[in-house]
Amino acid sequence: MAKPKKTSRPKAETPKGFRDYFGAEVTQRADMLRKIATVYHRYGFDALESAGVETVEALGKFLPDVDRPNEGVFAWQEDSDSDKPGDWLALRYDLTAPLARVYAQHRNDLPTPYRRYAMGPVWRNEKPGPGRFRQFYQCDADTVGAPSVAADAEICAMLADCLEEVGIGRGDYVVRVNNRKVLNGVMEVAGVLDPSDPNQYASERGVVLRAIDKLDRLGLEGVRALLGEGRKDDSGDFTHGAGLTDAQADVIMGFMQAKRHSGTDTIATLRDLVGASATGLEGVNELETIADLMSAGGYGPDRIEIDPSVVRGLGYYTGPVFEAELTFEIKDDKGRVRNFGSVAGGGRYDDLVKRFIGQEVPATGVSIGVDRLLAALHAKGRMSSQEEGPVVVTVMDKARMADYQAMVTELRTAGIRAEVYLGNPKNFGNQLKYADRRSSPVAVIAGGDEFDSGMVQIKDLILGAKIAQSATLEEWKDRPSQYEVPRGELVAKVRDILESSR
Amino acid sequence: MAKPKKTSRPKAETPKGFRDYFGAEVTQRADMLRKIATVYHRYGFDALESAGVETVEALGKFLPDVDRPNEGVFAWQEDSDSDKPGDWLALRYDLTAPLARVYAQHRNDLPTPYRRYAMGPVWRNEKPGPGRFRQFYQCDADTVGAPSVAADAEICAMLADCLEEVGIGRGDYVVRVNNRKVLNGVMEVAGVLDPSDPNQYASERGVVLRAIDKLDRLGLEGVRALLGEGRKDDSGDFTHGAGLTDAQADVIMGFMQAKRHSGTDTIATLRDLVGASATGLEGVNELETIADLMSAGGYGPDRIEIDPSVVRGLGYYTGPVFEAELTFEIKDDKGRVRNFGSVAGGGRYDDLVKRFIGQEVPATGVSIGVDRLLAALHAKGRMSSQEEGPVVVTVMDKARMADYQAMVTELRTAGIRAEVYLGNPKNFGNQLKYADRRSSPVAVIAGGDEFDSGMVQIKDLILGAKIAQSATLEEWKDRPSQYEVPRGELVAKVRDILESSR
Repeated sequence: MAKPKKTSRPKAETPKGFRDYFGAEVTQRADMLRKIATVYHRYGFDALESAGVETVEALGKFLPDVDRPNEGVFAWQEDSDSDKPGDWLALRYDLTAPLARVYAQHRNDLPTPYRRYAMGPVWRNEKPGPGRFRQFYQCDADTVGAPSVAADAEICAMLADCLEEVGIGRGDYVVRVNNRKVLNGVMEVAGVLDPSDPNQYASERGVVLRAIDKLDRLGLEGVRALLGEGRKDDSGDFTHGAGLTDAQADVIMGFMQAKRHSGTDTIATLRDLVGASATGLEGVNELETIADLMSAGGYGPDRIEIDPSVVRGLGYYTGPVFEAELTFEIKDDKGRVRNFGSVAGGGRYDDLVKRFIGQEVPATGVSIGVDRLLAALHAKGRMSSQEEGPVVVTVMDKARMADYQAMVTELRTAGIRAEVYLGNPKNFGNQLKYADRRSSPVAVIAGGDEFDSGMVQIKDLILGAKIAQSATLEEWKDRPSQYEVPRGELVAKVRDILESSR
Repeated sequence: MAKPKKTSRPKAETPKGFRDYFGAEVTQRADMLRKIATVYHRYGFDALESAGVETVEALGKFLPDVDRPNEGVFAWQEDSDSDKPGDWLALRYDLTAPLARVYAQHRNDLPTPYRRYAMGPVWRNEKPGPGRFRQFYQCDADTVGAPSVAADAEICAMLADCLEEVGIGRGDYVVRVNNRKVLNGVMEVAGVLDPSDPNQYASERGVVLRAIDKLDRLGLEGVRALLGEGRKDDSGDFTHGAGLTDAQADVIMGFMQAKRHSGTDTIATLRDLVGASATGLEGVNELETIADLMSAGGYGPDRIEIDPSVVRGLGYYTGPVFEAELTFEIKDDKGRVRNFGSVAGGGRYDDLVKRFIGQEVPATGVSIGVDRLLAALHAKGRMSSQEEGPVVVTVMDKARMADYQAMVTELRTAGIRAEVYLGNPKNFGNQLKYADRRSSPVAVIAGGDEFDSGMVQIKDLILGAKIAQSATLEEWKDRPSQYEVPRGELVAKVRDILESSR
């Protein structure tokens, strides 16, 4: 039969690239954010929460030079309230740009240094992909107004503490530290950076940075190709390289491979590599100070190490850069074993506030990718995706609702998660199906007989499920997972079952 | 002297109607949300987190019938990725509209009933005013798919529990319950609702609803005027009324004043008022069931009461409605004593999912205004706006950074919030000013002498501030708030001071 009626119902769908999070996905993330906040707070950082919406002008980077300034951000124009056009507003794309705005706006009321942490969603107007969403969480801590490299060292130590706090054990992660100044020194030596004319070779250096950043994926050979003429990938696509000579490329390759067995040796190697470059030497000295502070603080190279191959893609870093990598192996969607990779990163950036106040303000910070960390813990089997459901008090007799309600109130008062079944109680099977769907550990059953005799039936659903999987029908009939207890023992019996099943 | 240089720096400002939250403002809200979530969870509700961005189509209410569908919402059009125009997206304006979308989208995978809680920011594109912001938090719990009035009763009990959990004592709040069906019954009796032609008199009923909703502000006389011809306010502006006759208005006024000393008496009065209206009777019976369940659950009329003057402005409620009011008095900005008023509200809405699936789905829920609740606790003096700062280890000798770092590491390991001063250490006064600005309880001081003798100076800043306020210079010189202890006793002494000052 035809369905002639045209439907004009709205589609019940998230916008492309957005998703919903349910139950354990939400509580585990909240729990992780709370743990990280506890560490940040213990280190003396204060909470800051700015709105999701900023002016495009304050966000910067994406200036309204075209009709619609939404390159990479979600942006819109305010309605005009007079003769002048409305402001362009946008959703924040990270938590650092808003920090720069907050610091510039409130700096007279803030302590110096200003140490803040912030956590919340950020939005990117990018093409979504598998596992890539247009809203995700960031969880940052930054110190603004502290030029000392001790501020960078502290953030590395804090990052290690955070990872351990959320359940990444020692040995399963490493915080790798490098310094952009060292890289700049090496670039001087290689002849692609002239301190007296910093803008020269800028595009070559961009290619070099991106190439080093791809070491994980492309290997040494791939990076080498990108430093030279370029590289053809598996699909046959050609990526243009930096066009360095072999001698120049050798210098860069030497830098990337400068990591030695001990931090002291690595630093000595880097000192050789930067030669007479003042910037390079400054960077090496900073790395040395960080290494000293780390070892004084008890953070050995099993937790924090100097690694010259870390460069961090973003352009704005000016000194130390760091990255936390999980070192355990996981299986990807296709069953292939691979390293999990980076879950956090940061570094020193001294120019971010300058846009607003015309003055350089030294700053350093870290951003932890909580969604990736959660994925890692799931992949490693350290987190259950199923939360324990509530105890379900079933409804045998609608007229007894107040009695059922009294039962859940008692359970809740004892701190036990519980609810009365509130759907249509007619079909009792549906009630048990509901309990199953909620992963309820226990169902409580009471009808006329029970109320008359002052008893209540308590069904251990976890044990019941186990028996159902393995028992014969004969054993099943004995219902060893269901108990009849006096009404007054309801809470005690439920608690017994919950404790024994944990 | 003139400043000829034109500056083109971006303004460091939040967009109009948005604000930043600092320190205690953030942690107190997070703490409140966590407490409410704990109660919701114990009642069996599961967490849900949807994105801040939805399609305008799914949000509904604000359909793109004009060029720019941003009446009340922040909306923008996606870039087109082919020949058809991009979708309109918008920031969610509450958590209920997204719930309807989520339920419609995922209903085959969700249990029935679906009980979820959600908390997070929502955005309104409205004119900001004092204390009115365009981004604020909501904290909701809803049961979808449960027609039983027991679901409404449970939400009222849960609301009372939430308020007590966050520190609103018994006696300082009341949850008031009414039923839209009773009001509809009264409207029938008054002759402004004809069940056989529900669209007749719709605009009159709208005026009546809004008038009752303003009882708090306008008093009985003001409402009466709005039921009749209209009302002139203090400024001389005239608001048109519903145009009811005196006899009709009397019926409505009788309903609003139907509250008696006991719930039983109120219900009896309402039963009289709705006369033969089938809808009205149904509503009265539902109220009676709620009252019975409340009293069986131990929620007396000091916590939850039937109050016919509660109507809740929003159009979509179809049955029980409820509202939590704080009953204590506070002083407003101008020093006037007033009641704090409503901090949470909700009710039954059966039509919200229908837009998507063409089928009515019964639902009921509550939304708690956490920002208003926090304001109430502050106004009542139950919350400090100043958080305790970190212990500050001052820097007397830059070369000793590793030693200072070791001190904070010890303190943090003992669970004590602490940091090394990371600003420029040259001016020691600045370091103490910093500690003051951070509300630090303790400063640690160690220079060459202390390191040589294995000692450390510990300054009790809270006691010090007290002495500074009241002591003579002679007493001050004795520095009774500063102690010299062996380095090994650092943590123990700091802990002593912290404990004695709390």
